[in-house]
Amino acid sequence: MAFYDKLETRDPQLREDEQLAAVRAQISHAQQKAPYFARVLERIDARDIKDRATLAQIPLTRKADVIELQKSSPPFAGMTSIPMSELGRVYMSPGPMFDPEGKREDYWRFARAMFAAGFRRGDLVHNTFAYHFTPAGFMADMGAHALGCPVFPGGTGQTEMQVSAMAQLKPRCYVGTPSFLRIILEKGDELGADLSSLDRALVSAEALPAALRAWLVERGVATLQCYAMADLGLVAYESSALDGMIADEAVLIELVRPGTGDPVRTGEVGEVVVTTLLPEYPLIRFATGDLSAELPGASPCGRTNMRIKGWLGRADQTAKVKGMFVKPSQLAEVAKRHVEIRKYRLVIDHDARNTDHMTLHCEIEAPGDEVLARTVAATLRTVCNLRGDVVFEAPGALANDGKVIDDRRKYD
Amino acid sequence: MAFYDKLETRDPQLREDEQLAAVRAQISHAQQKAPYFARVLERIDARDIKDRATLAQIPLTRKADVIELQKSSPPFAGMTSIPMSELGRVYMSPGPMFDPEGKREDYWRFARAMFAAGFRRGDLVHNTFAYHFTPAGFMADMGAHALGCPVFPGGTGQTEMQVSAMAQLKPRCYVGTPSFLRIILEKGDELGADLSSLDRALVSAEALPAALRAWLVERGVATLQCYAMADLGLVAYESSALDGMIADEAVLIELVRPGTGDPVRTGEVGEVVVTTLLPEYPLIRFATGDLSAELPGASPCGRTNMRIKGWLGRADQTAKVKGMFVKPSQLAEVAKRHVEIRKYRLVIDHDARNTDHMTLHCEIEAPGDEVLARTVAATLRTVCNLRGDVVFEAPGALANDGKVIDDRRKYD
Repeated sequence: MAFYDKLETRDPQLREDEQLAAVRAQISHAQQKAPYFARVLERIDARDIKDRATLAQIPLTRKADVIELQKSSPPFAGMTSIPMSELGRVYMSPGPMFDPEGKREDYWRFARAMFAAGFRRGDLVHNTFAYHFTPAGFMADMGAHALGCPVFPGGTGQTEMQVSAMAQLKPRCYVGTPSFLRIILEKGDELGADLSSLDRALVSAEALPAALRAWLVERGVATLQCYAMADLGLVAYESSALDGMIADEAVLIELVRPGTGDPVRTGEVGEVVVTTLLPEYPLIRFATGDLSAELPGASPCGRTNMRIKGWLGRADQTAKVKGMFVKPSQLAEVAKRHVEIRKYRLVIDHDARNTDHMTLHCEIEAPGDEVLARTVAATLRTVCNLRGDVVFEAPGALANDGKVIDDRRKYD
Repeated sequence: MAFYDKLETRDPQLREDEQLAAVRAQISHAQQKAPYFARVLERIDARDIKDRATLAQIPLTRKADVIELQKSSPPFAGMTSIPMSELGRVYMSPGPMFDPEGKREDYWRFARAMFAAGFRRGDLVHNTFAYHFTPAGFMADMGAHALGCPVFPGGTGQTEMQVSAMAQLKPRCYVGTPSFLRIILEKGDELGADLSSLDRALVSAEALPAALRAWLVERGVATLQCYAMADLGLVAYESSALDGMIADEAVLIELVRPGTGDPVRTGEVGEVVVTTLLPEYPLIRFATGDLSAELPGASPCGRTNMRIKGWLGRADQTAKVKGMFVKPSQLAEVAKRHVEIRKYRLVIDHDARNTDHMTLHCEIEAPGDEVLARTVAATLRTVCNLRGDVVFEAPGALANDGKVIDDRRKYD
């Protein structure tokens, strides 16, 4: 069987009709069950949504606003259709932002992406996404279970133990970030461990540079990407055609001009706006802050859904570092805790191994204070849950361009 | 409803008859499906097992031997009745030792202990057991799901973020180690966070000193313990009677004279030997290395199963630090990596907060080498997955008593 299910090869017009019908049902459902959407969609009559043009009349819900919405109406801002007591799990992403998980099997729909990446029933899956706080680990875990794959829950870090587990359990499949897969394979070389059982990987949460993919393929690990997020689960995934990312069947994707809700022309870079068709957390026209572009035509693999290019950057200054969001508001919090910091700018780049690396440049009166630098670094880690270097500079040293996050990573 | 199910209040003789019948079925099953047990139980006819005296004729399988058995026949030493491909998850405990998880709901049977601790359908459960490598996190997670409780998967560490999640999500229930619960509540005080939603806790993986339980109860958190391990899941649990730990209904517990398979008299301290009645990993007369003693009579709460005292120490020198095993073989591995170490002894004690703390004392020729001390500490952390101090001493300074692990923690 070459496809996960028959939805993937639907006639495009049939899919469009079925998805628009599902969107209409979702709007009615959300208006009845989720107070936030009852308010935001007050003037919307679901029956009017006949095509993408009418869909574009519906107000966006911006991911960037969810933190504040949740703060004023905790924990989910009235955006869920079921109470907390009926959920399977609840997560906290940096911000903080809370993400609900429904009880259904494969709630995050990773099985589809895993199948496309070649994972098959009975294959052992080594999962290095974190299960703590974030849903990433469970996205992979629940997807693997839906496929009938046993999981080794490795989580993040502990490279030497990851190598040891792999060498002995001989998984066929890896799921996690691509940079950590490289780190594990290199550590395996160093320790003389045989990790050759691994021949499939599904990677996400960070960019996959072409050079890294080639390196992994040369090591015998066919590596495909998917695009997912903590609120929506799977949004799009690669197939072996390696020709863009195919939309998941449970979401409807639009690309809009950043700052507006207006669809861009096919091929033009726009903000990814997603409407989910699952009932528990009925996000309707959810503006992700991510940039991408639609690819024309259908994938050579036979899947007929729309395709987008990979992640092309952020519509705002929020950045993703090692799979976690870093927000201007978090840096403001770091600065608030140290009165000495007059101005700051976070520079994000790649180190020699293509791993994300961040440096917080701060203007302070007396740049030589190393104790303070360590204290600020500790605060940065506490607030962002990420390590970063801290460099002090003299007042006036940072450019006056309004940037607080300067993402210098190169993606090809 | 005061009990999780009717099994808990069975007539004791009925339970004994049903459990012995289940043990006979388990022996036949294991002989047919698990090559290790086919070999070890070769001379055993299940039909002969009529009571605990005949059960005691069956050879023990020592937990301490499983690491070597797994090494010679990876990954599960032929002790499971189903292939890896049919499992739900696989874990690696320090050693390394691999633990299989079957696909059944609540495989580790924590729902029973959670129910006894007052967890009820719909309660949010904040889970601080780790989901990575070890099954501890999933023991609690799967138990909560069987009860119909949503879970916040907090995992270990990140105290400030745990406080933030609790203050906003307002869980009623906590599951994790008791020392970490105290750390979280104290951090909450420090940050002025309202954690008063918490009123139930199920704790495990380390001792619960009476003073700490009293402190938690005074904070409004009724705290009960359970006794569980990575191979067996739940073994015994407390009820609100607070009078010993009641055996789980899916295991048969014996207490034997350490080093033998012979049952001790009721009340005498012996090694805990467990036979599980679930089919996937049919451990028969599994000698845990833990010491306990049977309490006479039945619990005042109405549950009729046998009761044991809490954990009374280890039958061997293996120690549990912050919920993880530390073994003589691991310390031997640390020493092997540093030729300078001539003799060593790990001292385990409690710090002021009742948190486990370990110090590796090493005899070396030149005790002043701080760079080496840091390197050894890093090796210790890598091998044991636990932080510890390293203290160098002059040759001859350590007592000549054969002890490599000196557990000085006091339990009342």
